Amino acid sequence: MDISVLASGLDTIWVVLTAAMILLMEGGFALLEAGFVRQKNAVSIIMKVFVDIAFGALVFFFFGFAFMYGTDVSGLIGASGFMMGGDLTHIQLSISHNTYWLFQCAFVIAVISIVSGAVAERINFHAYILFTVAMTGFIYPIAGHWVWSTGGWLGSLGMIDFAGSAVIHGLGGSAALAAAMFIGPRIGKFSENGTPNIVPPSNLPLASVGAFILWFGWFGFNSGSTLSATNSSIGHIAVTTMLAAAAGGATCILFTMFRYRKSDPPMVINGSLAGLVGITAGCAFVSELAAIVIGAVCGIAMVFATEFLESKKIDDPVGAFAVHGVSGSIGTLAVGLLAMPELSEGAGKGYSGLLYGGGWSLLGVQALGLVTVTVWGFVVTWLAFKVISLFVPVRVTRDEELVGLDVGIHGVPAYSQENDFIEVTRLKNG
Amino acid sequence: MDISVLASGLDTIWVVLTAAMILLMEGGFALLEAGFVRQKNAVSIIMKVFVDIAFGALVFFFFGFAFMYGTDVSGLIGASGFMMGGDLTHIQLSISHNTYWLFQCAFVIAVISIVSGAVAERINFHAYILFTVAMTGFIYPIAGHWVWSTGGWLGSLGMIDFAGSAVIHGLGGSAALAAAMFIGPRIGKFSENGTPNIVPPSNLPLASVGAFILWFGWFGFNSGSTLSATNSSIGHIAVTTMLAAAAGGATCILFTMFRYRKSDPPMVINGSLAGLVGITAGCAFVSELAAIVIGAVCGIAMVFATEFLESKKIDDPVGAFAVHGVSGSIGTLAVGLLAMPELSEGAGKGYSGLLYGGGWSLLGVQALGLVTVTVWGFVVTWLAFKVISLFVPVRVTRDEELVGLDVGIHGVPAYSQENDFIEVTRLKNG
Amino acid sequence: MDISVLASGLDTIWVVLTAAMILLMEGGFALLEAGFVRQKNAVSIIMKVFVDIAFGALVFFFFGFAFMYGTDVSGLIGASGFMMGGDLTHIQLSISHNTYWLFQCAFVIAVISIVSGAVAERINFHAYILFTVAMTGFIYPIAGHWVWSTGGWLGSLGMIDFAGSAVIHGLGGSAALAAAMFIGPRIGKFSENGTPNIVPPSNLPLASVGAFILWFGWFGFNSGSTLSATNSSIGHIAVTTMLAAAAGGATCILFTMFRYRKSDPPMVINGSLAGLVGITAGCAFVSELAAIVIGAVCGIAMVFATEFLESKKIDDPVGAFAVHGVSGSIGTLAVGLLAMPELSEGAGKGYSGLLYGGGWSLLGVQALGLVTVTVWGFVVTWLAFKVISLFVPVRVTRDEELVGLDVGIHGVPAYSQENDFIEVTRLKNG
Repeated sequence: MDISVLASGLDTIWVVLTAAMILLMEGGFALLEAGFVRQKNAVSIIMKVFVDIAFGALVFFFFGFAFMYGTDVSGLIGASGFMMGGDLTHIQLSISHNTYWLFQCAFVIAVISIVSGAVAERINFHAYILFTVAMTGFIYPIAGHWVWSTGGWLGSLGMIDFAGSAVIHGLGGSAALAAAMFIGPRIGKFSENGTPNIVPPSNLPLASVGAFILWFGWFGFNSGSTLSATNSSIGHIAVTTMLAAAAGGATCILFTMFRYRKSDPPMVINGSLAGLVGITAGCAFVSELAAIVIGAVCGIAMVFATEFLESKKIDDPVGAFAVHGVSGSIGTLAVGLLAMPELSEGAGKGYSGLLYGGGWSLLGVQALGLVTVTVWGFVVTWLAFKVISLFVPVRVTRDEELVGLDVGIHGVPAYSQENDFIEVTRLKNG
Repeated sequence: MDISVLASGLDTIWVVLTAAMILLMEGGFALLEAGFVRQKNAVSIIMKVFVDIAFGALVFFFFGFAFMYGTDVSGLIGASGFMMGGDLTHIQLSISHNTYWLFQCAFVIAVISIVSGAVAERINFHAYILFTVAMTGFIYPIAGHWVWSTGGWLGSLGMIDFAGSAVIHGLGGSAALAAAMFIGPRIGKFSENGTPNIVPPSNLPLASVGAFILWFGWFGFNSGSTLSATNSSIGHIAVTTMLAAAAGGATCILFTMFRYRKSDPPMVINGSLAGLVGITAGCAFVSELAAIVIGAVCGIAMVFATEFLESKKIDDPVGAFAVHGVSGSIGTLAVGLLAMPELSEGAGKGYSGLLYGGGWSLLGVQALGLVTVTVWGFVVTWLAFKVISLFVPVRVTRDEELVGLDVGIHGVPAYSQENDFIEVTRLKNG
Repeated sequence: MDISVLASGLDTIWVVLTAAMILLMEGGFALLEAGFVRQKNAVSIIMKVFVDIAFGALVFFFFGFAFMYGTDVSGLIGASGFMMGGDLTHIQLSISHNTYWLFQCAFVIAVISIVSGAVAERINFHAYILFTVAMTGFIYPIAGHWVWSTGGWLGSLGMIDFAGSAVIHGLGGSAALAAAMFIGPRIGKFSENGTPNIVPPSNLPLASVGAFILWFGWFGFNSGSTLSATNSSIGHIAVTTMLAAAAGGATCILFTMFRYRKSDPPMVINGSLAGLVGITAGCAFVSELAAIVIGAVCGIAMVFATEFLESKKIDDPVGAFAVHGVSGSIGTLAVGLLAMPELSEGAGKGYSGLLYGGGWSLLGVQALGLVTVTVWGFVVTWLAFKVISLFVPVRVTRDEELVGLDVGIHGVPAYSQENDFIEVTRLKNG
C-alpha cells in the first residue's frame, strides 16, 4: 500500500462523511422550520426543503458548480465544469473532483434552505422552485466564486471566510431579507396600527431537535471545510464551533430570562444557531475565548435583530435574517479583529486581526467582502423575484394562505388524527 | 507505526462509521412508517422496527450470518460462522471479521424493515416476530449467499449488485408484496365495489424527516459497501447516490404537480427513496448522468406502481413494494444497460452494460438474478406466513384493528394530551 | 507525507466524528425525554437539555476539564488545564489536547443529561442551571479523575471502566436518584395510600426515535473511547455494543409480553438503552456472548428497578436511575466477572474476570470503584441541592406545576394548533 493512496483515501472518507453530515442538516432545517411555523403550513415548508435538496443538487451539477469553481474569467465567474466536465486542473486537491463537488453541493443546499424559512407560509410553490434554480445556479455560485475560487477577486484581495459566515450565511441571510420584504408579511402578522402579532410555534420539540441536528451537521460543515484529514486545525475548529454554539445558547438562556422574564425557547434555539453561524468564518483562526465572545455577541445580536425586523414590519417567520444574516456578518468582521497569526498558520496561512497586530487591512478586506456579498445577495434576489413575478405569482392566494399551504397547495394536512378511511376518490382528481 | 496497521485502522473506522449510519436508518424507517400510518397504529409500527433491530441482530449473529457468508456448500448456502466461530478464512478483507459482521448486520435489519411497512396496521405482533426470525435467519441470508458470498452461484455467474438493489430492495420489496397479499388489506381500505379509500398520513413532518435520515444513511449504505476507505470509487458512489435521490425527488415534485395538480408530499418522499433504491446496485458503475436517469425513472415508476397496486386491491400502507421492489428491480437491470467499463475498473472490475458495448450477457445475468431473488423472496415469504399461521394468527382481531394496534396490542397510545395522572392500577394488570 | 502525520490525522478525524456523534445524543435525550413526559412539560425538558449542552460545555472549558484531567494532586483532583492552558504534558495522545477536550466534553454533557430526566416536570429552572454547573464543573470531574485520569486513585488500583458504565452512568444514575428523592414526586404521581398513578407518555414516536439516535451515538461513545483509529478493538467494541443493545431490547419485548401481557413500548425503549449502558464498561473486554448476557440481564433488571422505585414512592419520570444507575452498576461489575484476557490484550491490557481465571481481585476493585463513585454521586448531588435550595427554590410552585412548566416557566406551549395570529403584546411583557 502506497502512503499517498492511504492519504487520499483518508481525505476522501473525511470529506464524504462530513458532506453527509451537512446534507443531514436538511433534515434539521425541515424540523426547525416545520416546528416554528403554524401547523397549517408545516408540510409546505418541508416540501420547500425537498425542492432545495432535489433541484439544488441537479442545478449545481449542471451549471452552478461550473459558475462557481470553473476556470476563472476576470475574477468574476467560472467557465468550466458543467456536468463535472471540462478543464478543472486548477482545483488541486488530494480528493477527487467529484468528492469535492459533493461537499460543495451540500453547501449550496444549505444556502437555499436559509431562504426557505423567510418566505414560509405564503410563497407560491412554482415561484419557489424558480428561485431555487436562480439561487443555486447563479446567485450563490457567482458570489462564491469571488471569495473561494482560484482567481476570484475577493479571495485574491485576501478576504477570509473559512466555512462561509459571509458566503453562506451573509449571502443567504441577505437574500432571505430581500425575499421576505418582496413577498410581504403574512396576513395578520401586523395589526393595522403596525404592532406585531404572535402565534405560538406549532411544534417546539421538533424545532429543538432540528437545532440539535444542525449543530451536529455543523461539525461537518466547519471541520470538513479543511478538505483534508491531516490539516492540523481540525481539532481546534471543532472546539471553537462547540464553544461558540454553547455561548450563543447560554447567552440567550440568560438574556431572555432577564429581558422577557421567561427563558424563551425559540430564542434559545436560534441563539445556539447564531453562535454556530458566527464562528463559521473564523473557526480555524480565532482562539477558544474569542469563539465564546463571538458566540455570545451573536446570540444577543440575534435577539435585537429579531425585534428590529418586527418593528420595521418585516416578517421573517423563522428568523432567517436575524440568525444567518446578522451573525454571518458579525462572524465575517470578527475575523478581521480576532484572527491570531499563530493559529491561522496551523491552517497554512498567517492571518492577523486588528487586535493581534495585523492592522486595519484584514478588517477592511473583510468589510469590503461582506458588503459586496450581502448587497449582491439582496439586490439580485430582489431582481430574481421581480423577473419570476412576470411569469408566475410569487405569493399564494388569500384563500390558500388562510386555509394554509398544506391543504391549499399540497392537498394534505401535516398532522391527521383521522383513524378511519375516507370514501373519496383519490387526490388525483382533487 | 506500520503502514498496514494504519490502512487497516482506516478501513475499520470507515466500515464502523458507515455501519452506524446504516443502523441509524432504523430511526428513519421508524419515523417514515409512523408518519405514514394512522395515528392509532404509530407505536405498533415502531415496535416492529424494534423487533427488526433487536431480533434481527441476534438471529443474524447466531445463524443468519453463517448461512450467508459461511463456507460455501454447492453455491447455495454457507455453513460456518455460527456465532462468528468456525472457518471464515475465505473472507479476505483488511477489516476484522466482526467489523464485517456489523456492516452485514446493518443490511439484514434494513431488509426486514422494508417488510414491516407493508404489513403495518394489521399484523399480529407474535407473527411478526416469527417472520423476522425467518427473514433475517434464512430467507435473506440464502439469497444473499447466492449473490454476494464466495462461491455463491449467482455471483459466480457474474451478477453485479454493488450495495443491494436486488439482494436488499428487490428481495425486501417482493417479500413485502407477498406479506401484504397474504395478510390482506386493512379494513376499509377498499370499498365493496373495489375502489380504494384514503386516509391522510398521521404525521408528515415525521415521515419527511425519516426520509432525510434514510438519505443520510444511504451514503453509508452505498459508499460503505466498498468496505475499504482506499477504494477509488468512494467519491463517485457518493455523487451518484446524491444525484439519483435528487432526480427521484425532483421528478416526483414535477410529475405529481402535473398528474394530481398538487405536488404530492407522500409521493415526493417516496420518490426520493425510489431514486436511492434504484442507484444502489450501480452506484459504483454508472455515470453521473446515468444516475440521474435511473433516479428519475424510478421516481415515476414508483407513482405508477403505487396506483397499480391499489387498482389490484393490494394494500401496501407505506408503499414498500413500489419503492423497494420496483426501484430495486429497475436498478438491478440498469446495471446491465448502463455499466461503464472505465468506471467499474475504478472499483477493481471491468463491467460493460449493453449500451457501452458489453452486449447482452451482463443484462441477461442481471435479469436472471433479479427474477431468482424476487421469486425466492415472494414464494418463501408466502410459505413462511403459511407455516406461521399454523401456530399463531397472522392478523390481529377485527376489534384490535378498529381500535388500533397501539392501544389494542401495546396498551398505550402514540400521542397523549393527558396532563394529569390517572388513578388506575398499572398496565401490568391491564 | 510523513506517516506520523497521517496517523495523527486519522486519529483526529476518528475522535472528532465520534465526539460529534456523542453530541448528537443530546438530540436523542431531548426527544426521549420530551416524548416520555406529559405534553405540558415537553419544552421545559428540552430547555434543560439546552442548559446541559450550553452551560456544560462552557463550565467544562473553564474549570471542569482541569479538575478532571489536569495534573494530579494526591490522586484526588486535577489542577491544570483551566481554559485548556497550563501543563498538560501528562496527557500523551496522538491527538491534540483540544480534540481530546471535545470528546470529554461530549461525555460530561451526557452525564448531566441523565439527571435532567429524573427531575423532569417539577424542577425550578434556575436551580437546574446551578446544579448543571455543579455537576459538570465539580461532581463528575472529580469522580472521573479518580478513575480515568493519570494518577487517579481508583484507576491506579486497577479499576476498569472503558467508556463509563460507572463514571458516566453509575454516577449519573445515582445523582439522578438523589435529585429525584430530594425534589420529591410530581403532584398526583402517588395516591394518598401510596399507589402509583400513571399517565401515558405524550409522544412515543419521538421517544422511540430518541432511542435510535442514542443507539447511533453509542457507537461513537464506545468505539470512540479508544481515542485511536488503529486500536484493534474497535470492531469488537462496535459488535458488543450492538449485541448488548439488541439483547436488552429483545429481552424487554419478550419479558413485558409475559409480565404485562402486552409488549410495553416504554419498557422496550428503555430496555435497549439499558443494554447499551450495561456494555459500556466492558465493551472492549468481554466476548460477544457475554455482551448478549449483559444486555439481557440489564433489560430485565431495568423493569424490576422501575417497579421497585415506584413501590418506594420515588418518582423518576423517564427511568433515569433504572436505566443508567442500575445497568451501569451491573456493567461495571460484569467486567470483574467476564473480562477475557485475550480480548483485553487487544486493547493493550490483559484483564481477567473471575470466570476467566482472574480471581476476585478485579471484581473487588470494580465493586469498590462502583460503590465509591455512586455514593459520591448520590451524596454530593444531595448536598448540592441542599446548598442550591438556600438561594433559589429547587421546585416550581404548585400552580406552575399544575399548568405545566412550558407555559408556566417558558411562556409557550410545546405544541400549538393555533393557525391565526393572536393580537397580544409580545412575550416581553408577559
